[in-house]
Amino acid sequence: MIDAYRTPWPQVAEHLRTGEGLAFLPFGALEQHGPHLPLGTDTATATAVARRLATRLDAVLLPPVHYGDTWNNAGYPGTLSLSAATVTAIAVDIGKALAASGAGALVVVNGDWGNRNPLYSAIRTLQDEQVIPALALDHPGWDAAATALRTSREAAPGLAHAEELETSLMLAIDPDTVHPERYVSCYPAFPSDFGTRPMQLHPFSESGVFGDPAPATAHTGEALLDAVVEGSLAVLEDLRAQVRARRGL
Amino acid sequence: MIDAYRTPWPQVAEHLRTGEGLAFLPFGALEQHGPHLPLGTDTATATAVARRLATRLDAVLLPPVHYGDTWNNAGYPGTLSLSAATVTAIAVDIGKALAASGAGALVVVNGDWGNRNPLYSAIRTLQDEQVIPALALDHPGWDAAATALRTSREAAPGLAHAEELETSLMLAIDPDTVHPERYVSCYPAFPSDFGTRPMQLHPFSESGVFGDPAPATAHTGEALLDAVVEGSLAVLEDLRAQVRARRGL
Amino acid sequence: MIDAYRTPWPQVAEHLRTGEGLAFLPFGALEQHGPHLPLGTDTATATAVARRLATRLDAVLLPPVHYGDTWNNAGYPGTLSLSAATVTAIAVDIGKALAASGAGALVVVNGDWGNRNPLYSAIRTLQDEQVIPALALDHPGWDAAATALRTSREAAPGLAHAEELETSLMLAIDPDTVHPERYVSCYPAFPSDFGTRPMQLHPFSESGVFGDPAPATAHTGEALLDAVVEGSLAVLEDLRAQVRARRGL
Amino acid sequence: MIDAYRTPWPQVAEHLRTGEGLAFLPFGALEQHGPHLPLGTDTATATAVARRLATRLDAVLLPPVHYGDTWNNAGYPGTLSLSAATVTAIAVDIGKALAASGAGALVVVNGDWGNRNPLYSAIRTLQDEQVIPALALDHPGWDAAATALRTSREAAPGLAHAEELETSLMLAIDPDTVHPERYVSCYPAFPSDFGTRPMQLHPFSESGVFGDPAPATAHTGEALLDAVVEGSLAVLEDLRAQVRARRGL
Amino acid sequence: MIDAYRTPWPQVAEHLRTGEGLAFLPFGALEQHGPHLPLGTDTATATAVARRLATRLDAVLLPPVHYGDTWNNAGYPGTLSLSAATVTAIAVDIGKALAASGAGALVVVNGDWGNRNPLYSAIRTLQDEQVIPALALDHPGWDAAATALRTSREAAPGLAHAEELETSLMLAIDPDTVHPERYVSCYPAFPSDFGTRPMQLHPFSESGVFGDPAPATAHTGEALLDAVVEGSLAVLEDLRAQVRARRGL
Amino acid sequence: MIDAYRTPWPQVAEHLRTGEGLAFLPFGALEQHGPHLPLGTDTATATAVARRLATRLDAVLLPPVHYGDTWNNAGYPGTLSLSAATVTAIAVDIGKALAASGAGALVVVNGDWGNRNPLYSAIRTLQDEQVIPALALDHPGWDAAATALRTSREAAPGLAHAEELETSLMLAIDPDTVHPERYVSCYPAFPSDFGTRPMQLHPFSESGVFGDPAPATAHTGEALLDAVVEGSLAVLEDLRAQVRARRGL
Repeated sequence: MIDAYRTPWPQVAEHLRTGEGLAFLPFGALEQHGPHLPLGTDTATATAVARRLATRLDAVLLPPVHYGDTWNNAGYPGTLSLSAATVTAIAVDIGKALAASGAGALVVVNGDWGNRNPLYSAIRTLQDEQVIPALALDHPGWDAAATALRTSREAAPGLAHAEELETSLMLAIDPDTVHPERYVSCYPAFPSDFGTRPMQLHPFSESGVFGDPAPATAHTGEALLDAVVEGSLAVLEDLRAQVRARRGL
Repeated sequence: MIDAYRTPWPQVAEHLRTGEGLAFLPFGALEQHGPHLPLGTDTATATAVARRLATRLDAVLLPPVHYGDTWNNAGYPGTLSLSAATVTAIAVDIGKALAASGAGALVVVNGDWGNRNPLYSAIRTLQDEQVIPALALDHPGWDAAATALRTSREAAPGLAHAEELETSLMLAIDPDTVHPERYVSCYPAFPSDFGTRPMQLHPFSESGVFGDPAPATAHTGEALLDAVVEGSLAVLEDLRAQVRARRGL
Repeated sequence: MIDAYRTPWPQVAEHLRTGEGLAFLPFGALEQHGPHLPLGTDTATATAVARRLATRLDAVLLPPVHYGDTWNNAGYPGTLSLSAATVTAIAVDIGKALAASGAGALVVVNGDWGNRNPLYSAIRTLQDEQVIPALALDHPGWDAAATALRTSREAAPGLAHAEELETSLMLAIDPDTVHPERYVSCYPAFPSDFGTRPMQLHPFSESGVFGDPAPATAHTGEALLDAVVEGSLAVLEDLRAQVRARRGL
Repeated sequence: MIDAYRTPWPQVAEHLRTGEGLAFLPFGALEQHGPHLPLGTDTATATAVARRLATRLDAVLLPPVHYGDTWNNAGYPGTLSLSAATVTAIAVDIGKALAASGAGALVVVNGDWGNRNPLYSAIRTLQDEQVIPALALDHPGWDAAATALRTSREAAPGLAHAEELETSLMLAIDPDTVHPERYVSCYPAFPSDFGTRPMQLHPFSESGVFGDPAPATAHTGEALLDAVVEGSLAVLEDLRAQVRARRGL
Repeated sequence: MIDAYRTPWPQVAEHLRTGEGLAFLPFGALEQHGPHLPLGTDTATATAVARRLATRLDAVLLPPVHYGDTWNNAGYPGTLSLSAATVTAIAVDIGKALAASGAGALVVVNGDWGNRNPLYSAIRTLQDEQVIPALALDHPGWDAAATALRTSREAAPGLAHAEELETSLMLAIDPDTVHPERYVSCYPAFPSDFGTRPMQLHPFSESGVFGDPAPATAHTGEALLDAVVEGSLAVLEDLRAQVRARRGL
Repeated sequence: MIDAYRTPWPQVAEHLRTGEGLAFLPFGALEQHGPHLPLGTDTATATAVARRLATRLDAVLLPPVHYGDTWNNAGYPGTLSLSAATVTAIAVDIGKALAASGAGALVVVNGDWGNRNPLYSAIRTLQDEQVIPALALDHPGWDAAATALRTSREAAPGLAHAEELETSLMLAIDPDTVHPERYVSCYPAFPSDFGTRPMQLHPFSESGVFGDPAPATAHTGEALLDAVVEGSLAVLEDLRAQVRARRGL
């Protein structure tokens, strides 16, 4: 595995141009995660997953994009959201630059829900214009593991924010940034069109927590990371085969 | 000083909304710096300067933007350049989000030559639309210090890339990423319109070095960092006064 | 209920400006639906749902948008896909025009999977810029009804295209356009990243069918329409309450 | 003739790819036409013309675009105008999709004055980038027929809106949507720069009528449609010859 | 009258801010006009008209825009065409800057057929966003005068290019740039959709002339200029009244 | 030398297509230059330089762009600034049109500081997309000559506006437009971030003068023009060699 941020260009270039030549890009956000988790939670999570994947596949780890589209949380000051168009542009530009560098494929490891649509646009563009094989991973494997591991209930179907699971992740990744003494729990009532229409979250939770962080453990966090890494490896099978076929490996 | 990446939103919000409320954004690039310095050199330098400034002014340090407009070096694989428009969009979006968060001002600490024009556009937009007081620092104080400290000659007027001075910076900031055993020196012949027209650098230096890294020392690097920090503080005087006046401090 | 297409402006204007003033916009696509269903299937379905909703709520029915983002099916000639940006622009423009006309809210009834992301962008813009209350309905209530009614298996989780359910819809809405003599069934093998990355469908099915249309009945189609109409009415509760509150009703 | 909206893709594809392969796209608008004609008047007219042309030439009839640039009438609520850029984007996207589908040519049948400029831009782009042979028909043959058939005077040179001629068209096309009991006549005084500068119409006519609908007859409407169809066929001669030459017919 | 190009800002500012404060902007093109007229013909004509109008109304004459959208003539080398979007942007920017300078109105004097659509867009934007009263003059009064003065026939209805009338204009405005020894006449056969679809002109005339320049006289040119100036003054009546009303004059 | 504005297309085309085929484009601005110099100062200067260069190299002189990005001076009414994007678009469009016309290279002679960044973008695009060899000259040779010739001090490092040197230029180029009786001198105090952040100039000088025009002489102006012409010719050496190599000269 090569950490591009700390490595001179000739080694990175060599690594992109030989073998499968995958480049893993953690795409995060500077987004509120309640009073007990840091603003960098999504970036830290995406980077942890990307590092493990790059290690497993002897790939290139790119430095993370620390800012994403987190419009839903923009009502909490300190959250700094990019527009959707900017997120798309970043990913497209990096894809083009990787192609020019001779990389095998771009794998975005996405850590922020709000990046899904703009990254979908970027990946579609990279594919449609045949720039480079590319995909974005949105925590494959998460759902099954979350159902199995969760001991507290969700605030809403599919909504896990600064609660047991996300707190567990940070206990596993960087426990110094977790403040258990500030744990609060929050289960708001949502309107009939929640999940249907774009909606900012700050009217529903003063703290920014959705669910209950209290039962979080580093062990649960590790198990979630493992599940996502395994889920990602399964998803990546065909992309890797495609690259190897292209390169005659 | 508050490191936003590792801090929950309520503390960051409080820090942005009281006192001068300055937010320092390191803007780097993933750019070749010869066979002996890492791709992250410009980001590391900008982050080091921003961290020192935030500490001196008890301000908020934002996580760095790891990618910039480095078209000039895009011919060296591993370099991943954003388009100018994307760089501008990132800075404008972050400025708007800081304004919405109640920050006093945005100070971009730029580490990459190619970001100058697109950041100028961004700062002008933020000012012109009265979004937030903002400026971008391009290493003020560097020129005088460089002239005083340099023992090797420049490859061209104003061109210092992966040579004595940049290598000194990395010896001061993160010596483990410097590989003295790979030092090479390069003094190319440039065409008559060098410096006048946009020009990619790879035809002029196989290694990506412009100048001579051999005389680099951590001591020189520290002196350069000090000069840039002091130069930056001097430049910031009036912006800070303006913010204090606005806030009745 | 008022059908705007066939009504002079003074009646439409009056209807938008009084009561809840909802305007229902069917958003379809000209998209392949196998050898037995017409290219207008998605538009016809969205229009049928919108007409029933407008009737139930005495609202304004707008004429449909016949073209949408159907990139996934663009490999089947006759499919005419708009770009995502164009879909977003259409919905934003219509939202602005409805606001200028004094409407209470815009409800997009979406009939095409590919429109989801671009309509999400449009609705977010309309909300964020406080143009008009707006949402897009993606067949709420479908999943439960589909599970209950389906007698054949899905081609992939969540993938229902020109099979039992869509064919049932058209048997209920416009049976003359259905050609049972051309029914074919297709259950392709999908790659490991299917559902994760943007993927065109034509390499996986020559006919354009995904699943089996054979068990389709008009009765199933009616039951699906009923379920979507009821699901939509449930989702719309809060938007309607918000409009009534605004208007002092 | 094939009506794409109600036909499965294989037949439409076959029809586009053989013979001249012309696709007729009616481009309308949801635009006020006084108290006695429906908002869909322009779309209905364009569709009627396109259907007759497609029948005469055994071509493909595409479903209409129901929304257009009708800024001039946007002051009458119920009118829903797209921006010029959106109109251009729709036509360009459809042209590209037709090219990908193997069509011979795109013929836009335009029913709305405000679409002229944006459709001109679209057609120029399709031609200039050699996407597909394309043109937009703005009722060729209308002027001579109108002069011959009109019994009431025009509100201004070239201005026929919801008066004798447009009302005649709808009496011929869809008489149920015409409300003779609401006929009003209006001959406003226009400023010195009328026709020179972009101008909205609502300050000049409360009803939205410009001229006098009273003398309208279905017979006049039929005669106008005939004239436009014949005028269109004459204009299309060379485009069709060009397509046949390309295809070796 | 004030010629802004040769005048310091305080006088220009004073002139824009008092009286009617009209600013006349000649908008030309660098466009082929046959072997006997200069590339600057359209700019020279627009400037001559604008200068006379500014003199008659004691207004500000702005320096001309020398480049326009002349796509139709782009097949003749030496013609340098801007895109339509660029023409629109120039006019919108100048309108905004005039508004910021306190001008009464912007009057574009257009000299190039291809600028019509993009200038229409610009003027509509300036009006719609209430930036500044504005209009574009396309030689009002020309048609009647041309019919009266022309002794040779047109190459096509409404097509006058480098023939008797345009040559007469240049004989009146700048006779040194006219080369009678190179006069050629050209009456091409046009296709059935000429005038309907965007069409470049070079396939139809090798010389770039459409019509016959031989009968041109300076006297005819002067008469045409007079007619356009009088036509323009008539059109401007209401705009000027509107500005005077705004300013309480 | 050929003045394209006053020359028919066949001669211009021939001149662009043979020899080095350089086209010189003066890019100016309509920008305040104090109470004693005209708004067209920058355009006049750029045109004078371009004319001399075209004469020296027997090249094509294009008509000037009279409007530029002069945001810094937009606070002085009468100044009419384009946006940066518009300036870039103009230069890119002209570059593309020159390429289509078969020109050897585009040389922009820039007369306005604010055009530097947007012209840099344009030239980079023209180069990057391999449209045409191109560069923008920002008065090479000026600095040394200015230092040698100046008898009054600068208002700030690198800031020369409507003072001795610019006034000298206009005394040399067009003395009738200079008004010595209105000379004023101005040496404002600037803030600590002057030169670092985008800043409009009107708060610092009521007159618009920065420095002292009193010592200006036509002799100094001529010497400055000579220096810039010689500096430009030196810079152009390699571009011309590149064009000659391409053309086999």
